Amino acid sequence: MPHPAANLASWLNATRPPMKQCIDLNSDMGEGFGPWRIGDGIDEQIMPLISSANIATGFHAGDPGTMHRTVALAKVHGVGVGAHPGLRDLVGFGRRHIDIPAPELVNDIIYQLGALREFARLAGLHLQHIKPHGALYMHAARDEALARALVGALQLTEPGLSLYCMEQSVTYRVARAMGQPVVREFYADRDYDATGSIVFTRRTGRLDPRTVADKVVRACVEGRVRTVQGGDIAIGFDSVCIHSDTPGALELLQALRQALADNAIRVAALPEVLQTA
Amino acid sequence: MPHPAANLASWLNATRPPMKQCIDLNSDMGEGFGPWRIGDGIDEQIMPLISSANIATGFHAGDPGTMHRTVALAKVHGVGVGAHPGLRDLVGFGRRHIDIPAPELVNDIIYQLGALREFARLAGLHLQHIKPHGALYMHAARDEALARALVGALQLTEPGLSLYCMEQSVTYRVARAMGQPVVREFYADRDYDATGSIVFTRRTGRLDPRTVADKVVRACVEGRVRTVQGGDIAIGFDSVCIHSDTPGALELLQALRQALADNAIRVAALPEVLQTA
Amino acid sequence: MPHPAANLASWLNATRPPMKQCIDLNSDMGEGFGPWRIGDGIDEQIMPLISSANIATGFHAGDPGTMHRTVALAKVHGVGVGAHPGLRDLVGFGRRHIDIPAPELVNDIIYQLGALREFARLAGLHLQHIKPHGALYMHAARDEALARALVGALQLTEPGLSLYCMEQSVTYRVARAMGQPVVREFYADRDYDATGSIVFTRRTGRLDPRTVADKVVRACVEGRVRTVQGGDIAIGFDSVCIHSDTPGALELLQALRQALADNAIRVAALPEVLQTA
Amino acid sequence: MPHPAANLASWLNATRPPMKQCIDLNSDMGEGFGPWRIGDGIDEQIMPLISSANIATGFHAGDPGTMHRTVALAKVHGVGVGAHPGLRDLVGFGRRHIDIPAPELVNDIIYQLGALREFARLAGLHLQHIKPHGALYMHAARDEALARALVGALQLTEPGLSLYCMEQSVTYRVARAMGQPVVREFYADRDYDATGSIVFTRRTGRLDPRTVADKVVRACVEGRVRTVQGGDIAIGFDSVCIHSDTPGALELLQALRQALADNAIRVAALPEVLQTA
Repeated sequence: MPHPAANLASWLNATRPPMKQCIDLNSDMGEGFGPWRIGDGIDEQIMPLISSANIATGFHAGDPGTMHRTVALAKVHGVGVGAHPGLRDLVGFGRRHIDIPAPELVNDIIYQLGALREFARLAGLHLQHIKPHGALYMHAARDEALARALVGALQLTEPGLSLYCMEQSVTYRVARAMGQPVVREFYADRDYDATGSIVFTRRTGRLDPRTVADKVVRACVEGRVRTVQGGDIAIGFDSVCIHSDTPGALELLQALRQALADNAIRVAALPEVLQTA
Repeated sequence: MPHPAANLASWLNATRPPMKQCIDLNSDMGEGFGPWRIGDGIDEQIMPLISSANIATGFHAGDPGTMHRTVALAKVHGVGVGAHPGLRDLVGFGRRHIDIPAPELVNDIIYQLGALREFARLAGLHLQHIKPHGALYMHAARDEALARALVGALQLTEPGLSLYCMEQSVTYRVARAMGQPVVREFYADRDYDATGSIVFTRRTGRLDPRTVADKVVRACVEGRVRTVQGGDIAIGFDSVCIHSDTPGALELLQALRQALADNAIRVAALPEVLQTA
Repeated sequence: MPHPAANLASWLNATRPPMKQCIDLNSDMGEGFGPWRIGDGIDEQIMPLISSANIATGFHAGDPGTMHRTVALAKVHGVGVGAHPGLRDLVGFGRRHIDIPAPELVNDIIYQLGALREFARLAGLHLQHIKPHGALYMHAARDEALARALVGALQLTEPGLSLYCMEQSVTYRVARAMGQPVVREFYADRDYDATGSIVFTRRTGRLDPRTVADKVVRACVEGRVRTVQGGDIAIGFDSVCIHSDTPGALELLQALRQALADNAIRVAALPEVLQTA
Repeated sequence: MPHPAANLASWLNATRPPMKQCIDLNSDMGEGFGPWRIGDGIDEQIMPLISSANIATGFHAGDPGTMHRTVALAKVHGVGVGAHPGLRDLVGFGRRHIDIPAPELVNDIIYQLGALREFARLAGLHLQHIKPHGALYMHAARDEALARALVGALQLTEPGLSLYCMEQSVTYRVARAMGQPVVREFYADRDYDATGSIVFTRRTGRLDPRTVADKVVRACVEGRVRTVQGGDIAIGFDSVCIHSDTPGALELLQALRQALADNAIRVAALPEVLQTA
C-alpha cells in the first residue's frame, strides 16, 4: 500500500526534490564488548537487512575479535563497511560528552579508523565510510574546530572516504567545503528539533514499528519530518539510520523495509544511492 | 517427589554425612558493564531465588552504578552481599589466566573488596563474604602463595569475613589453617574432575534444568558427584553456585529450587547454614 | 626573614583574621600508573614535607599496588591519608570535563573512596579526608547537584570525613549547610580569578619557588591573594596545596617550608590546624 | 680502537660469518601513556641515534596522541617506523603473560597494527616492520600456534612487512617457512640463555654502558654471546635492540654508537642492512 501522503505531497509542492527511488540503510554493528551484548544483540539478523554497517572500533564499544567477526559478517551479506569511532568511554558507551581539544579527538579517530581498516584489509575489503559515534558525532555536528580537524585529517589519509553526517550540521558544511564526500543521514529512531538536528539521547525506549516506518517513508516521499516543537521541516538525506541498540531494532527494520517496498523505494548499496541522488 | 537415590544412599553408607537440611545458594550478580548485559541479564529475577550474591567489583565486570543498584537489590531481597573480585581483564571477563605475582593480585583484591564494602556501607549493610572470580578463583585454588597472601590480607582487614572456595582446593586448606571462615561450594553448572576441582571453562552452553537439579540434590543427599572421568567422588559443601551468565540460568534456578523443596532441603541464609553444618 | 608585608597588613586592616600559626600542607600522592611516573615521580621525597596526602584511587591515576605503597609511605611519615577520586579518564589524567549526571559521579566516588579506605584498613589507619581530583573537583565546585549528591553520600558513609574544597565554591557552601566537615584549600601553584576560584589548567609549567613561597606566606599573613585580573581578593583557608606533578614540586615545597618557618608558621596535622582555626 | 677479539676470532673460526659492516639499531618508542612517562622519557634524544623505531600501539603503552607525535619524530630523523603491539595490559606494561588463544591474540595485533599504519599514512610514510612487545613477543617465540596465526594474518595483510624476532625462536622458523621477511635481533640490554633466547624480565636495572657496548661489538665481530649459564653461543642478527625504558638508555646508546664507530660498523637503514646480510 503506497503511503497516503504521496499524491498530496507531489500536488502541494512541485519544486520539492523528487521522491527517492532508493536509499542506503545504515546501522551500528559490532557494539558488544568482550562477552557482553547490547540491545538485543542480534547483528546476525540485522546485517542482512541493511546496506551499510558502522562498525564499532573499540573506544566506546567493540573489541578486536568482535570487529573481525563483524567485518566478516558484512562481507557475507555484501554490506558496505564503515568505521564507527567513538569517545574513549566504554562505561558511558561514548554517549557522554568529554571536553577534549579537536586535535586530540582526531588522533583518537585516526587510531580507530586504522584499526578497522586493517580488519577490512585482512578480509580483502575497502572501507566505504566513516561515521563518528554518539557524543563525538554530535560534537562534530556543532564544533567547527573538530569538523575542520577531522576532515583535514581525512583529506590526508583518504580524500575519497565518505563521511556520514546530518545535512544540518557543521560536519556537512565543512566536508562539502573541503571536498570530502558526504552521506546525509535521516534518523529513523530519533526525534528532530526545529534546527534539523536530532535530539540526542543516551538511551532510547521501545518504538512503534509502524510509526517509525511511516516517518521514514514520509521523509523519502515528501522530504519532510515533524519536529519535537510540533512543526515540519525539510530534511535532505541519502541514508536512513536505525540504531541496533534501540530495543526492538529488528522489528523496526523489518517494518521499515516492508514499508519502503510498498512504496517502491529500494534499499541499495551506497554508490548507487549517491549516483541517483 | 523425593529424589529416588535418597533411601539407597542412606542404606549404602551409614557413615556418610547426614543429608543436608538447608543450603546456601549463591550466584554472581551485577556482571554487566556500563550499557552491556551478560547472559540473560536478569539479576532482578535471579536475586529473589538466591541467598548469597557475589557482586562483581569492576575489574572483570561491574561498574560503580551497577554495584550500587545490585547492592540495593540484594538488600530488598535480604540476600547476603559478597565481593566478587576478578582479574583486571574486562574483555576476557576475568576468565583468562594472567601471570601476576601474588602480592600484586592481593592488592587488586583489596582494592575491589573495599569498593564493594563502601557500597554496602552506603546501604547500611555489612559484607557477608568474598569470592574471587574466574581465573583468579582457580589460581587461588591451586597456588599456595596466592592463597596465603590473600588470607593473610583478610586476616588484617576482616578476619571474620567468609571466603568462598572449593573443599578440594589450596584456598580451603590455607584458610582453615590460618583461621579465616570458609564456605565450601558445589558448582551446579560446572563439571567435576577426579581431583574434586571443577573443570574451568570460559563459556558454558545451555544445560538441562532437570539434570542440573538432580545433580545438586544427589550431592545434598549422598554427598557425591559424578566426574568427567566417569567415577564418583565425595563432595563436601555448604553452598551451591549457579552462574548467572549460564544461558537459561533462571530456569536452572527454578528447577533447582523446586527439586530442593521436593526433597525438603531449604535454601537458607548463610549463618543458619553454617550453624547446621 | 619575616615577610615584609606582615606589619603593613596588620596596620591596614585590623579586622582581618589573625595571622595563621599553623597550616596543613597537602599534595597529591601516588599519581603514577603501573610502570609510569608523572612529574618528577618523587613521592618518597615529597611525603616527608607534607601533612596530608591525597592518594589517587585508580580512575585518573593510581593502581592498587601504588595505593598500597603510598598508604604505607604516608604511615611511615605520620601523614594524614585521604582519598583522591577522579573521573574515569586515565589518558586525560582526570583533567578533561566529562558530562556525567551527579548520581553516576557519586557512584564513581564511592567506589574509589572504598578502595582507598580498604588499603588504610589493611595498614591499620583511618581515612582523614577526601578530595576530588581535577575536573571532578572543579565540577563539584560549581555544580549544586553534584555537591549535594556527594555530601549526601558522605553523610551516609562517614559524616565525620573531612572534605577538601575551596572556600569560594558550591562544595564548601553545601558541605557547611549539610554538616560535613570541610577543609578550605589555598593553591600555591595555581592562579586565582576574581571569583576566588583557581584558574583550571591541564598542565602547569615550572614556577619560581620564591614567588610561590611569597604568595603562600602573604595569604597566611594577610589573608589575600592577587588575581589574574590584577586586583587582590580575600582568601580563607586551612590547608595549602602543591601539586606533585608540577615540575620542580620538590623545590617549591622546600622553599615554601623555609618561608613558612621564617615567618613562624608551622606545618601541622590537620586536627591541630582545624582546632586553631 | 678495534675490538681486541677481532683477530683472534677470525683465526679461530674461518667458517664464521664475516664481521658485520652495518647493523640496524632499534628501540621501543612512544611508550608513555597520557601524561605519564616511562624510563627516562627521552624519545627526542634517543630517536636520532637509532635506525628503526618500534612504536607502542596502545595496548601495553602508547596512546593516539603519543603515536601521532612519535611517528612525526621518526619521520624527522628518517627512522624506519614499525608497529609494536602488546598484550592488553596497561598496568602490567604488557610484560605479564596472559593465557589467550592465538586467534584472539592475532585480532589484538591486527587492531594495533592498523592503528599505527593509519598514523603512518597520515604522515605520508609506509610501515617498515612489526615487532610484538614483551610477553607477546616471548609467547610468539615459543608458541607454534601463535606464530603461525600471526604470520598467516600478515601474509594476508602485508606479505612484505618485516617481522622482528630472535633467530632462535618459533617466530623466526615459522616466518621463514611461510615467506614473511624477518629481521633477527640481538638484545643489547638482556641476558641470553643457552637456547639462544633472552631471559625475560619485567624490569631491568641500570647497566654499564661499556659492558653493553662490548657485548654488542663482540656479537657483531665474532657472532657470539656469553650466556647466563657461562658458555658462549653463536648468535645471528641483523638488528640490535636497546630498550628505551632501561634506566640510562641514552648513555647505553651513546656508548654503543661510539664503540660501533670505533670498529667501523655503521648503523644503517634496515633495507641496506638486509641487502648486505
